[in-house]
Amino acid sequence: MTERTQDPRELLRLPVGGRTDLAGYDTRSTPGVLGGKSATVAATARAGKRLAGLQERLWAAGTAGDRRRVLLVLQGMDTSGKGGTVKHVIGWLNPSGCRIRAFGAPTEEERQHDFLWRVRRSLPRPGEIGIFDRSHYEDVLIARVRRLAPAAEIDSRYWRINDFERSLTDDGVTLVKCFLHISPDEQRRRLLRRLDRPDKHWKFSPGDIDDRARWPAYQKAYEIALERCSAPAAPWYLIPADRKWYRDWAVAHLLLAHLEALDPRYPEADFDLAESRARLLGRR
Amino acid sequence: MTERTQDPRELLRLPVGGRTDLAGYDTRSTPGVLGGKSATVAATARAGKRLAGLQERLWAAGTAGDRRRVLLVLQGMDTSGKGGTVKHVIGWLNPSGCRIRAFGAPTEEERQHDFLWRVRRSLPRPGEIGIFDRSHYEDVLIARVRRLAPAAEIDSRYWRINDFERSLTDDGVTLVKCFLHISPDEQRRRLLRRLDRPDKHWKFSPGDIDDRARWPAYQKAYEIALERCSAPAAPWYLIPADRKWYRDWAVAHLLLAHLEALDPRYPEADFDLAESRARLLGRR
Repeated sequence: MTERTQDPRELLRLPVGGRTDLAGYDTRSTPGVLGGKSATVAATARAGKRLAGLQERLWAAGTAGDRRRVLLVLQGMDTSGKGGTVKHVIGWLNPSGCRIRAFGAPTEEERQHDFLWRVRRSLPRPGEIGIFDRSHYEDVLIARVRRLAPAAEIDSRYWRINDFERSLTDDGVTLVKCFLHISPDEQRRRLLRRLDRPDKHWKFSPGDIDDRARWPAYQKAYEIALERCSAPAAPWYLIPADRKWYRDWAVAHLLLAHLEALDPRYPEADFDLAESRARLLGRR
Repeated sequence: MTERTQDPRELLRLPVGGRTDLAGYDTRSTPGVLGGKSATVAATARAGKRLAGLQERLWAAGTAGDRRRVLLVLQGMDTSGKGGTVKHVIGWLNPSGCRIRAFGAPTEEERQHDFLWRVRRSLPRPGEIGIFDRSHYEDVLIARVRRLAPAAEIDSRYWRINDFERSLTDDGVTLVKCFLHISPDEQRRRLLRRLDRPDKHWKFSPGDIDDRARWPAYQKAYEIALERCSAPAAPWYLIPADRKWYRDWAVAHLLLAHLEALDPRYPEADFDLAESRARLLGRR
């Protein structure tokens, strides 16, 4: 059996207020699962079905004024599996209740605003599950590594992110921030696979190789972001992501644990059931 | 076997430029399927997997400049299954490539603009599959039945819709407009079921019963819209929708036929494969 043996939130949460040394985490490890791949894939499917049920409750509660919602933030190096997670985990949900946004390089319009502007416009509405494939964290990751903004500006962004996320959690948003952690060797394997398959060439850009030379700088930028932008109400989770089946299991169970804690309820009828039934049956 | 026996586009398309008499269509019929429910559900699942493959090609082509995209428009009376279609058909797709929008009563901001404004802002981007749960057609349906705008204004909307849809198809949008056709008896059964189940109460509003008294006016408004807003490049499809398993089969196969006709292709690599491979392997 690969059922979780303990709360995945406890298992995967990075220390809040402590140091983060990414090299100290084994990207091939599978914390929380006891079985192998096929049993874990089956467990993820079971979790997916439970997620869909909880999602419907969250949505239903939202129609009756419950402002709560969930925002899954996916970050990680190229090929770490952000898109795959959306496909294989979010794919279990009802697409009507999901608000998915992938953040690429800012557009002309987006560059004319504060870095949080485009993020604010993409937030989930009450009852929804929002998914960010990359996020405002890019503005302290690639922006730091590539020096896309002055150092003082970037330094100010960490606390602006903290303020922003605090305003979200105060407003009923449950933040689930996942860092998908892969090794440079695994990235090489995945990039080579993209080269080997004509149906994967479109996912490849030679620029992906250039970025590999900046691997240590990215890891350092991640460590700083994960350290500075963890709060008790908005911690980071580190997902060992060299094994895709584990990554999907972990994100699915993290979402599940958060939704179970929210425990959304179907709203009570605010109308007279018997009267509506009689009217429908033509009895009045 | 419930494989389709002929092109579902031919089978379900309403006549372009002809009269539409909704009472002449059997809402319980299942045109195009030979088997029963379970064989049809299995056929829909097979279609769903093929849809996902074609969706990935469409998306991939979009990353290389192909502007084509698909827009599924779902219309129908309350309980006709617009939401269920999204869940059970669109649920097969990769949610990242779907842009779903449900249109309710216009907001304050939306009312300050032309009726097409909110629709234009919700269109799929190149490579995406857009889904409208209700649409700009509400502005000639409920708006006509409830006289929400002057008659002359509503009359002008039909050709403005035609102009708008023509601009979309000229710009690479494949429109798939589906009218989910149910009978008033089936609607009563579905509303009663919502009353019987506490987990369905949130979907019910006593106003749904009031609207039943306007059934003939709505059918007439639909007939006018289906007649006036059919074009060779943007026809309407009538889906008999009393049987949910048939409705899902029909919409899935309509989408599939359109995507197969588009025949999107994975783009060719625009970089040197051998050089990238050598660089990744550290040979240069």
